[in-house]
Amino acid sequence: MIDNPYYTHEHHGDYELVSIGRLELEEGGAIPDCRLAVTTWGELNEARDNAILITTWYSGTHQIWRDVYVGPDHALNPERYFIVAVNQIGNGLSVAPHNADGDNSLLAMANFPKVRIGDDVVAQERLLREHFGIEALQLVVGGSMGAQQTYEWAVRFPDKVRRAAPIAGTARNTPHDFLYTEALCEAIRSDPGFAGGQYKSNTEVEAGLTRHAGIWAVMGFSTEFWKQEVWRGLGFDSTEAFLEGFLQPYFTVMDPNDLLAMAWKWQRGDVTRHTGGDLAAALGRITAKTYVIPIDEDMFFPPRDCIAEQELIAGSELRLVADVCGHLGLFGVSPTYMPQIDRHLGELLAEQV
Amino acid sequence: MIDNPYYTHEHHGDYELVSIGRLELEEGGAIPDCRLAVTTWGELNEARDNAILITTWYSGTHQIWRDVYVGPDHALNPERYFIVAVNQIGNGLSVAPHNADGDNSLLAMANFPKVRIGDDVVAQERLLREHFGIEALQLVVGGSMGAQQTYEWAVRFPDKVRRAAPIAGTARNTPHDFLYTEALCEAIRSDPGFAGGQYKSNTEVEAGLTRHAGIWAVMGFSTEFWKQEVWRGLGFDSTEAFLEGFLQPYFTVMDPNDLLAMAWKWQRGDVTRHTGGDLAAALGRITAKTYVIPIDEDMFFPPRDCIAEQELIAGSELRLVADVCGHLGLFGVSPTYMPQIDRHLGELLAEQV
Repeated sequence: MIDNPYYTHEHHGDYELVSIGRLELEEGGAIPDCRLAVTTWGELNEARDNAILITTWYSGTHQIWRDVYVGPDHALNPERYFIVAVNQIGNGLSVAPHNADGDNSLLAMANFPKVRIGDDVVAQERLLREHFGIEALQLVVGGSMGAQQTYEWAVRFPDKVRRAAPIAGTARNTPHDFLYTEALCEAIRSDPGFAGGQYKSNTEVEAGLTRHAGIWAVMGFSTEFWKQEVWRGLGFDSTEAFLEGFLQPYFTVMDPNDLLAMAWKWQRGDVTRHTGGDLAAALGRITAKTYVIPIDEDMFFPPRDCIAEQELIAGSELRLVADVCGHLGLFGVSPTYMPQIDRHLGELLAEQV
Repeated sequence: MIDNPYYTHEHHGDYELVSIGRLELEEGGAIPDCRLAVTTWGELNEARDNAILITTWYSGTHQIWRDVYVGPDHALNPERYFIVAVNQIGNGLSVAPHNADGDNSLLAMANFPKVRIGDDVVAQERLLREHFGIEALQLVVGGSMGAQQTYEWAVRFPDKVRRAAPIAGTARNTPHDFLYTEALCEAIRSDPGFAGGQYKSNTEVEAGLTRHAGIWAVMGFSTEFWKQEVWRGLGFDSTEAFLEGFLQPYFTVMDPNDLLAMAWKWQRGDVTRHTGGDLAAALGRITAKTYVIPIDEDMFFPPRDCIAEQELIAGSELRLVADVCGHLGLFGVSPTYMPQIDRHLGELLAEQV
């Protein structure tokens, strides 16, 4: 257990820690007390059929969704829907290496078990059913690793997902993505301060986390983002200032073991575990109306990888988002990003299913 | 001075070490005894006007050109041309951190001075003139950092370059490329075995060089290279086997300081140093018939960056090469690669200039 001030209400506003009890894991072992950090907006109606689930991405929490995606002016409108964001296991708000204590104390730090996307989705389904009494969802939506969870939901629980909106992510992780994530992990693990995961504070791994941010700089945005100096519009006056004032501090406050737990999961996201490796069969299970939403300049979930999957989903639509920010367009810093997302999610929610 | 068996005739066949004497450097300081490793094919004619210059890329030497690009069946035909390949300063065959001895002993290892693309080109021009009596070139051709040198030649010595063929590279390095190269450097420098550049053997930096190879895996090929498992065609049966059998050993035999010297140069390649930052003015100096030859799947010298420069070069042509290998298509492993290169270089050499 490490006391890391980043993973607090001060940085993440209101959220509730809900235990779903013991969670058996696909890779073996279990999380004895699986606590999920949950935020909701709006009211669940009497029929309990106006719920939307938001899943979170690598390094992300519900907070970016509160800041950028959810509100009365957005498609994710709390005046119409009961919106639940569940932080993924390992993200540091939900149960994670750095905060494993009490019944989970044997899972602390480098002893945290391997968790898969499927474990998250099983946990989320139980949470929704047991804690909120929700049996079906109007929409599951998430970006990046959140898209992995969205696909997993649609394949694993087709009867529960009416609509699905995977943004900037794939149903089966690509080999290239695996290598990219491995480079991110190596940047952290190679820091002598990481000490095999037994550091006393994330500050001891600052060099590794900074290198990790440096690799994100290469892949997370686009070549045009840097060429057009888009960071100027974010209030910075040099590449270095942007890295030191935005990307590095974004990651260096985080817990290294938490990031590695999420990265391991990201690398192995794969709905074809349900179908013996058959992607068409797995995606063929989807009954949700699905909008596949890649970002055109994404360097590691490029549109063509998303399109190859979209073409295997019956009745699905490709909704390409244009954003020079690339994958990290997900942060919504481009003024043109959210209008596109709102249009696509709005049209998806308007679909009769 | 480190005795590294990679930088020998055993691995690089015939080449000659030619000293051009003292080389003053753009960044200040000098290389007292600037020794360049030079390989030639064919015969210089009496008029001394049938010469072609080949420049080398990051981590590369003349050897890949011998193995893949030069021969009687190629456009770079020694039966017609006198072809000179000059290894770039810092590459380990030419004067470099790991081999600086004798008059250069003060430049050894971490004390090696900052060398720029312009220094290489000045050194090459002197070598060609003083050692071979060559005053003009039918063609300058190089890939990646070799393209940087090719552009520098065409801008700095327009009267000496009849034709130019920059492959998979730019005249002014992009901000994204700078960040990519920085991540490569950080992978090496962060290895405790690097010891601030004062290691005793490259084997002490194997972990850092392996991480460096891992980042090349992410950016050097393309997402499709990995998805299509193109490495199977190279005789490997898994991603891991390809990394461990090809990409990692390719880099781990090399000298870390040598790689860093080249990387520093790569990051700062910029023909606009001649024109106060004005790219159009710099490229406007080019009188060579120029074919700009990007590779379609290149992730860090993407076609659009090359095209933006091509459009500023009078009379130039864009010749796009298709290769799923991406930037490292330069290695010529795709059977469809060299036929494209030979066609473009052949047509360029057939141009009346």
